[in-house]
Amino acid sequence: MTTYILRCITCKKEFEPKPGLYYCEDCGKIMGTLEVIYDYESLKADASIKERLFYNKASMYQFDFLLPTESKLKLDEYVGGTPLYKFDLLGLKDVLVKYDGSNPSSSYKDRASSIAINKAIDEGNEILFCASTGNAASSLAMLNAHTPMKTYIFVPAAIPAGKRAQLEISGAEVYAVEGTYDEVYDLSLDLGLEKGWYCRHAAINPYLLEGKKTGAFEIVIQNNFEVPDYVFIGVGDGTVVSSLYKGFWEFKEIGLTDKIPKIIGVQAEGIPAIKEAFEKGKPYKPISISGATLADSISVGKPRDVIKACTYVEASGGYFISLNDAEILDAIKELGKTGIFAEPAGAVPYGGLKKLIYEGKITKTDKVCLVITGNGLKDVKALEGAISKTTFTAEEVIERFE
Amino acid sequence: MTTYILRCITCKKEFEPKPGLYYCEDCGKIMGTLEVIYDYESLKADASIKERLFYNKASMYQFDFLLPTESKLKLDEYVGGTPLYKFDLLGLKDVLVKYDGSNPSSSYKDRASSIAINKAIDEGNEILFCASTGNAASSLAMLNAHTPMKTYIFVPAAIPAGKRAQLEISGAEVYAVEGTYDEVYDLSLDLGLEKGWYCRHAAINPYLLEGKKTGAFEIVIQNNFEVPDYVFIGVGDGTVVSSLYKGFWEFKEIGLTDKIPKIIGVQAEGIPAIKEAFEKGKPYKPISISGATLADSISVGKPRDVIKACTYVEASGGYFISLNDAEILDAIKELGKTGIFAEPAGAVPYGGLKKLIYEGKITKTDKVCLVITGNGLKDVKALEGAISKTTFTAEEVIERFE
Repeated sequence: MTTYILRCITCKKEFEPKPGLYYCEDCGKIMGTLEVIYDYESLKADASIKERLFYNKASMYQFDFLLPTESKLKLDEYVGGTPLYKFDLLGLKDVLVKYDGSNPSSSYKDRASSIAINKAIDEGNEILFCASTGNAASSLAMLNAHTPMKTYIFVPAAIPAGKRAQLEISGAEVYAVEGTYDEVYDLSLDLGLEKGWYCRHAAINPYLLEGKKTGAFEIVIQNNFEVPDYVFIGVGDGTVVSSLYKGFWEFKEIGLTDKIPKIIGVQAEGIPAIKEAFEKGKPYKPISISGATLADSISVGKPRDVIKACTYVEASGGYFISLNDAEILDAIKELGKTGIFAEPAGAVPYGGLKKLIYEGKITKTDKVCLVITGNGLKDVKALEGAISKTTFTAEEVIERFE
Repeated sequence: MTTYILRCITCKKEFEPKPGLYYCEDCGKIMGTLEVIYDYESLKADASIKERLFYNKASMYQFDFLLPTESKLKLDEYVGGTPLYKFDLLGLKDVLVKYDGSNPSSSYKDRASSIAINKAIDEGNEILFCASTGNAASSLAMLNAHTPMKTYIFVPAAIPAGKRAQLEISGAEVYAVEGTYDEVYDLSLDLGLEKGWYCRHAAINPYLLEGKKTGAFEIVIQNNFEVPDYVFIGVGDGTVVSSLYKGFWEFKEIGLTDKIPKIIGVQAEGIPAIKEAFEKGKPYKPISISGATLADSISVGKPRDVIKACTYVEASGGYFISLNDAEILDAIKELGKTGIFAEPAGAVPYGGLKKLIYEGKITKTDKVCLVITGNGLKDVKALEGAISKTTFTAEEVIERFE
């Protein structure tokens, strides 16, 4: 474990880490999200990091010199180290496809949940809680299942069946609450912070982004330290998009790379909260809109990591775009032709790339990476109506091939 | 690629491999399944194999000295190398849990599909076909999606939604046929062999077992060459259980280990065809029964690899047992408490272990490995009725914690 401090994204005030400190009270829960800041100068001067061998399939804990936890879970060995495929797609050569559907609970969120559980152990907490559109909750529940610690899960009652099944199977205490994600989030956050449970809300708890950023580290090492020009990622609450920027930024800051890709955040047109906040310009402010999309993982009207997301995406030279539900379904189906099956929110990077190519903003020589955050099996129902259900009799099959 | 010959499991006649040769015509499709036989004496004498470094997370192609293919697919790098967890379970210390739900298409079947596609390329075939209860088909369809080769898929119309979605998304040509797995199998086999399509039916095509056996190799190397006393595996058509025996047998034959575990094949009580054939005793004969189970992947009444399965399991000193559907559901739920989410057929090894502990046949000092063949997200519907669907209002949640 390296030493670090916490710093407010808005007022830049610095804090010594302590249990229960999740945000800057002066600036509040949304404006006052904290950054975990390591001693980058020392890390840059540390020759052992430059000489270090990194492994394409090692767990995310191979990056322990930039992680804030000490404990280790049994399942940690298999969190991260996920595939980075190269495909010729949409006229572009060697598009990088980072596929996080092969994590233990089949989503990117395992990177954050693993950190949450280890940090809770470090701090001596015995209960973890989470409100989630599904993946963060199922990830926490599955990874925490074999520990003696308790898991309280708060989800909107309407989450997809696959995600609910994972929760129930894990033995977590599940509260499926009637209401939107935003309502459930507020309810559980108030309750959990009051009770002193360990908070697995990536937008509030600054340590969770530290787990998520390892996806960026892996893209770099798996691509032989060649940093792509663009990275596309689905955006709901704003934490994964923020984490990718921070990961690329940190590797540059400590001298392992010399470039940060433009981060393109892809939202659902039905509920593009962060995109709207970003386009209103600086100073970035909290936003709350209503709307809907079939991509449940990014169906967030009141994003909690909006300030970091806007600040970081701007710093990268990137921006936000959005797709309608038909474009999202098309993205799932077209990406499927490579053998990658993504859940709706996991497929939006592909749809985003397609849109920017169509608009002439991405050209053939650009090096692009798509980050696929969840296995398509998570939400099969979303595909209903979009895929064939045709059945045949034996006779019809025989006739077909005569 | 190593050289090999093919040998009939029944009459022991040997054949030179050639395209289109899948079984011994003298003995027929079921009695005449072929074994792929390498030059084990030479391999045993080959010092480079003993000195070889094996990697816990490398793809199954690290075992190329015991594989029959030359081509390589883009997705091959991520087939195999799946987690081997150790959990204290049911009073036993360090039960090994081999979890194949993290393969590209989320099941064990990727090990065989990868071999099928590479072999088809080796032979210059351009169409692959498969009849399947779901996983073999979705695996072939997903892995073959990015190649220029065609995929024809034949499945029972009633396969679970997750598996059907994978098929449709991949771009395969899907024939969902009204009828049982056994009927669809016969239909497609006749059609495919007549047309000369490359056959991805693990019970007929002897090469596919070669891919599947790599699961056994991985258990050995991931457990530091300590071979467990017992290996539990779900059994439908009989190919995975056969492949595990062959893998352990080959490692012993070439001097990498000195022991073969007892293989315990776990079937569904509703349709325990191979168990019945095994218990009738030698000479083992084809069997055809009818019945049903919620574990769709092992719902097979007319198993095609019955001769190998019975012969190999007997040679290992193991046997077959069965579980009813309630025991299968319990197995999914209890295994879930470790953080492993298995589809019904993937959870039966856990239920089988529980049964044999209860019967006093497995004791605390036995070293056990459970092979979990598919991700629970494959078949969420199977859990309906077994997991809670309770929802809460915000007020109810607040009250609960007052």
